[in-house]
This record gives sequence, structure tokens and C-alpha cells, in this order.
Amino acid sequence: MIKVVILGAGNVAFHLTNVLLKTNKVELLQVYNKNLTKIEYLKPSVEITDNLSRLNKNGDIYIISISDDAISTFSKQLILLNKLVVHTSGSVSINDLQSSSNKGIFYPLQSFSKNKKVDFSTVPICIEAETSSDLKLLEQLAKIISNKCYIINSEQRKQLHLAAVFVNNFVNHLYYLGNKICDENNIPFEILHPLIKETSEKLEELSPFEAQTGPAKRNDVKTMEKQLELLPKKSKEIYTLLSNSIIKTYGKKL
Amino acid sequence: MIKVVILGAGNVAFHLTNVLLKTNKVELLQVYNKNLTKIEYLKPSVEITDNLSRLNKNGDIYIISISDDAISTFSKQLILLNKLVVHTSGSVSINDLQSSSNKGIFYPLQSFSKNKKVDFSTVPICIEAETSSDLKLLEQLAKIISNKCYIINSEQRKQLHLAAVFVNNFVNHLYYLGNKICDENNIPFEILHPLIKETSEKLEELSPFEAQTGPAKRNDVKTMEKQLELLPKKSKEIYTLLSNSIIKTYGKKL
Repeated sequence: MIKVVILGAGNVAFHLTNVLLKTNKVELLQVYNKNLTKIEYLKPSVEITDNLSRLNKNGDIYIISISDDAISTFSKQLILLNKLVVHTSGSVSINDLQSSSNKGIFYPLQSFSKNKKVDFSTVPICIEAETSSDLKLLEQLAKIISNKCYIINSEQRKQLHLAAVFVNNFVNHLYYLGNKICDENNIPFEILHPLIKETSEKLEELSPFEAQTGPAKRNDVKTMEKQLELLPKKSKEIYTLLSNSIIKTYGKKL
Repeated sequence: MIKVVILGAGNVAFHLTNVLLKTNKVELLQVYNKNLTKIEYLKPSVEITDNLSRLNKNGDIYIISISDDAISTFSKQLILLNKLVVHTSGSVSINDLQSSSNKGIFYPLQSFSKNKKVDFSTVPICIEAETSSDLKLLEQLAKIISNKCYIINSEQRKQLHLAAVFVNNFVNHLYYLGNKICDENNIPFEILHPLIKETSEKLEELSPFEAQTGPAKRNDVKTMEKQLELLPKKSKEIYTLLSNSIIKTYGKKL
């Protein structure tokens, strides 16, 4: 039985706490948060505290799941000997952990919202550690809650997090721009939902390179010019830059 | 029973032919293609021809499903009296149909690949016609094969097609750029698949405006600067333009 302590109460901490409470292969010893009211709902199931000196329960893994900027300073305050202290962030290096304990990463790569249920079994867990026994322990924990565990070092994780910005944050902004075009023309955006779904599901069978379609892929200048005329200035720039990038991608390889 | 003739053998025509053959509420009279070998597989189920003068079967709706550029010229050759001639394109106006018959649009908004099965019941069909009785007939046909039918005029359809470029073609290119970052750092791209899926599925509950997350949304300049350093020139431009567009979107509204 792996003994775990969670520190934090944000979206990741919230879902992680809940999934760990559900399995009988993990003993969740304590949950810490500086603001106790945020974790009071956990009282019936686990010990909660807002006092770092109360973290005296001999856990195996201490999971810091707080905002990126706060990880380094916060970890300095943790006086834990011979423990494994990990954080859950995609963009913070393992070296930013200032704890005197062993360090590691336990990064669940998914976009978490508090109100939306998470099926943790499909969430990729990216782990990193300084020793092979710590790595094994993290792998054990990851495999209890998820079917997907990857060993990813801090340099790779930084790049992975950047790739996630492209396929999540920027993609969502393109949804927003598409939605705006619809709104301005009294078209229900839901008409595009099945296309959006299909575009993402195609990746299960084709690489994005293979899946590309559209006027830029065909270098169909006439259609692109007609479409540019319909757009306001800001979106025109985005249309042009992305189209040119597609043209260049396929121009090179054909 | 609606009597239909299909003209063309591209991806849309292929899937449309197959779904119409499956329902007993439609009689598929003929399928025309200039290259007969492409439709020869249909011989056991429907009359096929490569000769326009053989289109003498008294259909109710003639569906032209060929490449956008060819629609206007091709429709001129169709000598059909008192028939309804429609095309299936997102970007071609109803007025580009040069047939002497009644004109209309029957535009299934989805990305079709020949090798991938289509569940037509979820494909939005956008229809347009010049008379209310023609519109009713197209609506009848749409509702036989799909649960989603929308009346969309040519001006709206042009805009809808443009919005589709953003949420499909451009989104897929961002997948490609994310994939590239992964490849260059020996990270399996599949780690991002669940995030990509979640990003698109979120739209069922949240608008893209509400669903936005990430460094640009938070105007987290430090993270953005660090990420820019990791990128090659071309992707840097895309990162900057999209981040600025997100910052502007939320700067305005907060």
C-alpha cells in the first residue's frame, strides 16, 4: 500500500485527491492546504490540515499540486527526511523543487475543470525521478490510477507542455474564432460540432500530416483570396500565417 | 418516395450514394460519373452511366457532387426540365448553378475520407432552395439520412465554410505543429491524444470563450517568454500571433 500526502487544492489536486480516495491500493494519509475551507469537504474521509508542521505521518510520496510560480518557495518549507516529494506541473523543472528530500514529477497531462468529471484511467501520467527506485514507486502509483504512464524528463516535459499549448490553448482559440464568424452571421455554432469532433478523432487513425485538408493544403489561391476578403483584419493575419505555414509544410514535402 | 440521381464520385458523392442506397425511403435512380470505372462497384444496386443524355429517369432531385471549380460549367450541360438540381459544396453559391431547372443546395458539413465510415445521422445537412416547396423536399431528404438539418443561405454558407477552415484545417495544422515538437524531442505524440479529445469535447458543455485556458489567457508573460525561446522562427510567429489574439480577446472583456 503506497502512502500518499497531497498538498494543494486546485483543479489537479482536487481530482487527484478524489481518485486516490477511491482506490484501496493507496492510503491517503493527509491533505494540506493553506486555506482549510477549500478542503473541509474531505474531512469525513481523510485528515486535513493547514499547518505544515503537522505533516508527520510518514508518507511515501508527498504530492505538491499548487500553482507553478509557488512550487519552488513552497517546497523549501517542507522539512521531510527520506521522503519522495513530487509536483504535478507540466512546466516546472524537477530542479525547482527545493526540498531536502528526494525529488520527482507526477504530471497528469489533461485539462482539468473542477465541475467536470475526469476518467483518470485515460489520463497520461508523465513521471520523472532521480533514482530508479523512486521512479518505480511513481510508476506503481501512476499505474494504479491510469492505464498510461510515460517516463518524461524535465527537458522533454517543457517541450510537451509547449506542444500542449498548441493542441489545446491555441486550438480552443481557433474554435473561438470560428464561433465568432458563426455568431456574426446568425449561424448556430453547433453546426460545426460534428466536424470539430471528427477532426480530433481522425488522429486515432491518421497523423496530422496525413489528415490535413483544405484550400491551403491544395494551394488553392482563388479560394484563399475569396475567404480573406470576408475576414476582419486580426483574423486575416491569422488566416494568412496559418495558410502560409500549411503551404510551406506541403510545398517542402511534395 | 423521393427519387434521386447523383452526379459525381468524389468523397461526398461516395458516402451520399451509400447512405441513400441503404434507406427504403429514397429511390436512387441513377449515378453518373464521367469516369465509369469509379462507380462500377455500384452496378448491382443502381443504374450507372457516363453519358449525360442518359439521365432520362424523371428524378425529383439531381445532386451534383463534384469539385467546386467544375460545378458551374458542369451544371450548364444538364438539360433537365422542372427538376430540382442541387450541389453539395460549402463554398459555391446557389447562383453558380447554371442549370435551367430549379436550384438548391444540399451541403453535408463534415470532413469525409473514402476509407472512413460515416455515421450520416450526426452529419449536419445545410439546405437552401429558391422555392418553399423545393426547400421542403430537401428538408425531407435531409431528415431521412440525418438528425440535423439547417436552412442556410449562400452568404451564410460561405461564412460557415470559412469558420470550418478555422476549426478543421487550421486546428489540424496546430495538431501537426504539436506533433512536430513531440517528434523533435522523442516524445510519443499519443500522450497528447486525450488532451486533444477533451479540448474538443468540452465544447458540448462550454463555449470556446468560456473554455479558454493557458498562459495567454492568464497574460502570464514569463511563461510565454520561456516558451517562445524553445520555438523555431516560423512557429514563434504563430505562437506570438495566437497568444496576442487571446490576450486581446480577454483583455477587452475583463
